[in-house]
Amino acid sequence: MTYELYYWPQIQGRGEFVRLALEDAGARYTDVARGRGGEARMMRLLGPGGAFAPPALKAGKLVLFQTPNILHWLAPRLGLAPRSEPARAALLQQQLTIADWLAEVHDTHHPVAAHLYYEDQKKEARRRAAEFRRERLPKYMKFFARPQKRFGYVHLSLFQMVEGLRYAFPNAMARLERRHPGLVEVHDAVLRRENVKAYLASPRRIPFNRMGIFRHYPELDD
Amino acid sequence: MTYELYYWPQIQGRGEFVRLALEDAGARYTDVARGRGGEARMMRLLGPGGAFAPPALKAGKLVLFQTPNILHWLAPRLGLAPRSEPARAALLQQQLTIADWLAEVHDTHHPVAAHLYYEDQKKEARRRAAEFRRERLPKYMKFFARPQKRFGYVHLSLFQMVEGLRYAFPNAMARLERRHPGLVEVHDAVLRRENVKAYLASPRRIPFNRMGIFRHYPELDD
Repeated sequence: MTYELYYWPQIQGRGEFVRLALEDAGARYTDVARGRGGEARMMRLLGPGGAFAPPALKAGKLVLFQTPNILHWLAPRLGLAPRSEPARAALLQQQLTIADWLAEVHDTHHPVAAHLYYEDQKKEARRRAAEFRRERLPKYMKFFARPQKRFGYVHLSLFQMVEGLRYAFPNAMARLERRHPGLVEVHDAVLRRENVKAYLASPRRIPFNRMGIFRHYPELDD
Repeated sequence: MTYELYYWPQIQGRGEFVRLALEDAGARYTDVARGRGGEARMMRLLGPGGAFAPPALKAGKLVLFQTPNILHWLAPRLGLAPRSEPARAALLQQQLTIADWLAEVHDTHHPVAAHLYYEDQKKEARRRAAEFRRERLPKYMKFFARPQKRFGYVHLSLFQMVEGLRYAFPNAMARLERRHPGLVEVHDAVLRRENVKAYLASPRRIPFNRMGIFRHYPELDD
């Protein structure tokens, strides 16, 4: 089975959580929108009857969207989740909480509307980011300081959260990581995995940038 | 099996999506936090190793949290979803999109932080709500204008979205419903279901109010 991943070609974004699972498992996949004509193919998947937004995953005739749904379906097939229903539910609820966390990260720089420029909502962003750093970020980091012991897709997603947050909020993270070493251990364990190391060193890993979900604006991390 | 639902006793909120499924199916359940000492029992379920936030559902020894995860597990047991994995995934991705929609509704009145009062973020709320009404609300209503034919938990959740949006944004909805009759049909079909009718007329249905996710502030619907 060669999977097809559909996601915006310029950013890591939500697609990265699926990409990390595929890469860690050494699965065969095509990153469709990064190939010739791929973005047009992705756009045809969107809309009523299709996906609400990227990422989408095509597995044979099956088309899935919504990152936690994709991972919930995919991970047992990649050896990144058990097959029993209660165990899968325990992971899905963690992943859904990561999705909420990620949406809050996004809204630190887009608190008014995703379709407006950051420059048009800087004042609101400053306020929202301050509250996020003070209240929400510690709450999430505390919650994820003791994840499931058995390695799986949630660990890969937590790795990505730490990577992204370090890029976006280096000052806040330097302070908070000392108080939540459990989450840092999860991050470091992922970083030692051979397939992850190879992936991060490859051109397949898109660098963080100011178009993605994790963005570094010094004024939002003071 | 008597299910136990744990959710804030003062509001419909996210718990309502689970409640509607239990009620429509005629399932036996206890709304724990609305009983004596129940809120304290709910608080003990929260935190690392437990749930990130309510709602939570207890089914025997299994404790589940995150609304879409609860419904994904519960619905096939209530006859509100098929049992095949691809069919369940098709519903889960719809429900996750409803969860995103609901979070955006929440943020219309809390664009800076959930832990601050509305009165402390009114200016930002006005801007966010205007963008929501103009850009996001039509996008979601269009997406859900043609849901799955087979009745299930997603229909119940779409009913709740329409009810809540009519309460919160009566002007915007009056305009938009004319352009998206498909979603209104889903709503009306749910309203004809006997168990739903009985539930809505009962004291178990908490009225909409200004503590919930759907809030009516005229200045956010002009």
